[in-house]
Amino acid sequence: MSPAKIEEDHRRGFIVPIGGAEDKEGDVRVLRRFLEVSGGKRARVVIIPTASSLEDTGSRYEKLFKKLGAYEAKSLPIVTRADAARDEWLKYLDHASAVFVTGGNQLRLSTILGGTPMATAIRRANARGVSVGGTSAGAAILSEHMIAQGQEGNTPKAGLVTLAPGFGLTNRFVFDQHFRQRDRLGRLLTALAYNPFAVGVGLDEDTAAFIDADSKLSVVGAGGITIVDGAGLEHSSIAETRDGQTVSMTNVRVHVLIEGGSFDLTTRTASP
Amino acid sequence: MSPAKIEEDHRRGFIVPIGGAEDKEGDVRVLRRFLEVSGGKRARVVIIPTASSLEDTGSRYEKLFKKLGAYEAKSLPIVTRADAARDEWLKYLDHASAVFVTGGNQLRLSTILGGTPMATAIRRANARGVSVGGTSAGAAILSEHMIAQGQEGNTPKAGLVTLAPGFGLTNRFVFDQHFRQRDRLGRLLTALAYNPFAVGVGLDEDTAAFIDADSKLSVVGAGGITIVDGAGLEHSSIAETRDGQTVSMTNVRVHVLIEGGSFDLTTRTASP
Repeated sequence: MSPAKIEEDHRRGFIVPIGGAEDKEGDVRVLRRFLEVSGGKRARVVIIPTASSLEDTGSRYEKLFKKLGAYEAKSLPIVTRADAARDEWLKYLDHASAVFVTGGNQLRLSTILGGTPMATAIRRANARGVSVGGTSAGAAILSEHMIAQGQEGNTPKAGLVTLAPGFGLTNRFVFDQHFRQRDRLGRLLTALAYNPFAVGVGLDEDTAAFIDADSKLSVVGAGGITIVDGAGLEHSSIAETRDGQTVSMTNVRVHVLIEGGSFDLTTRTASP
Repeated sequence: MSPAKIEEDHRRGFIVPIGGAEDKEGDVRVLRRFLEVSGGKRARVVIIPTASSLEDTGSRYEKLFKKLGAYEAKSLPIVTRADAARDEWLKYLDHASAVFVTGGNQLRLSTILGGTPMATAIRRANARGVSVGGTSAGAAILSEHMIAQGQEGNTPKAGLVTLAPGFGLTNRFVFDQHFRQRDRLGRLLTALAYNPFAVGVGLDEDTAAFIDADSKLSVVGAGGITIVDGAGLEHSSIAETRDGQTVSMTNVRVHVLIEGGSFDLTTRTASP
């Protein structure tokens, strides 16, 4: 599920992973900003509530996005793989300016949507300019390599994390969420210990990364984003480490950014 | 590490995963065929021995490829991430017609080469027509989603397999090797249970898949290749399954192919 080809004259839409528990009643900064980059008052949001086991998750986001000024907000209650091939639901993607993926269990997203026409339609929509955001599980699924599950703790350990294929909107970042709240540095480091190609993005709750078409990431929200860059990694011991044992890693670069901060993937530089 | 863009007027080179233990003294079918699709007598093979912990692995393949008629065979003894950025070694890729990745431990390949200029050069070489093959660990690393490790057995179980990012020459296939010899159907099914987007390719020993620029796969060698296609998957229970418990999956399609058989990814059809 790698990034769809970008057609000429089109710029990729924003990719917007959110760390979960985004504010919905106060100033609602993260979701307001998401609408702003998705057409503002003309925003047409398609909501994918599949990760959630609660029946009203989709309708709650419908009401919320409309209250925030979206022109349209439509939840597609996909619960089976057959649902993810329904023509009448795929058609909503043709006119959407945004796709929003709710929280829950990211393995419900990958098992129910993976390899379906709906997943392809979301990838293609992003490539032609539609912004795609998600919160918590909906953030994890956005990248090619998704953290499916893992354990808490600050130290990387072999076997601490389970990776699985996601939607593949980008393979340059790996997202983790509820980052500070659930003490997840260790599992993000472990994910990069296997292969430091991708950049790790640890998202605190009520905090989002807005990643533009030039792969520049900007922080919006109340918490921080921890960028873990393995470009300069000199050594990772995970090839020789048994499950449960600590992995040694040298020269990993870390940035902690708050609102207003940014990270440029092309130059690998952070700005506060 | 997704597939590099294919430049105009170039066709992607063959991707050639081999199931390990390929014949080196008899008719040497697999490696001979690999040279045939890599320029024949004009073949210039760059060997990546990094997965192996044996010092003579690279030189053994140098001698073998020359004996089989290659014009040149050069092993690059990359053992650190700094080695994988050495200009004088990267230059060999400019004139190579083939890259061959030896067996060993695939996590040595992903941790030492992942995100380095050498990994980028291999991806770009494949995109401009250079064939890239690998045996055992060298087969696993070729795809975007690599089986890093796992347990034996025919039944898919949650936690049975560890996925990690590979070289990313293709994200449409996931390879497993020593397939029949080490009883690995369960771990390949588990890999697809997370997300059935990719097609699983289980390679027996002394057996190779030759995947051409049109994503058509042809079997060469003494054993079989088991294709596991989740395109029609109706249900996977892995989102609700605890580690160690069996995963239910319905409507997975399986083909077992021997030499002369082929599988077309575009049409999802197998031919004996």
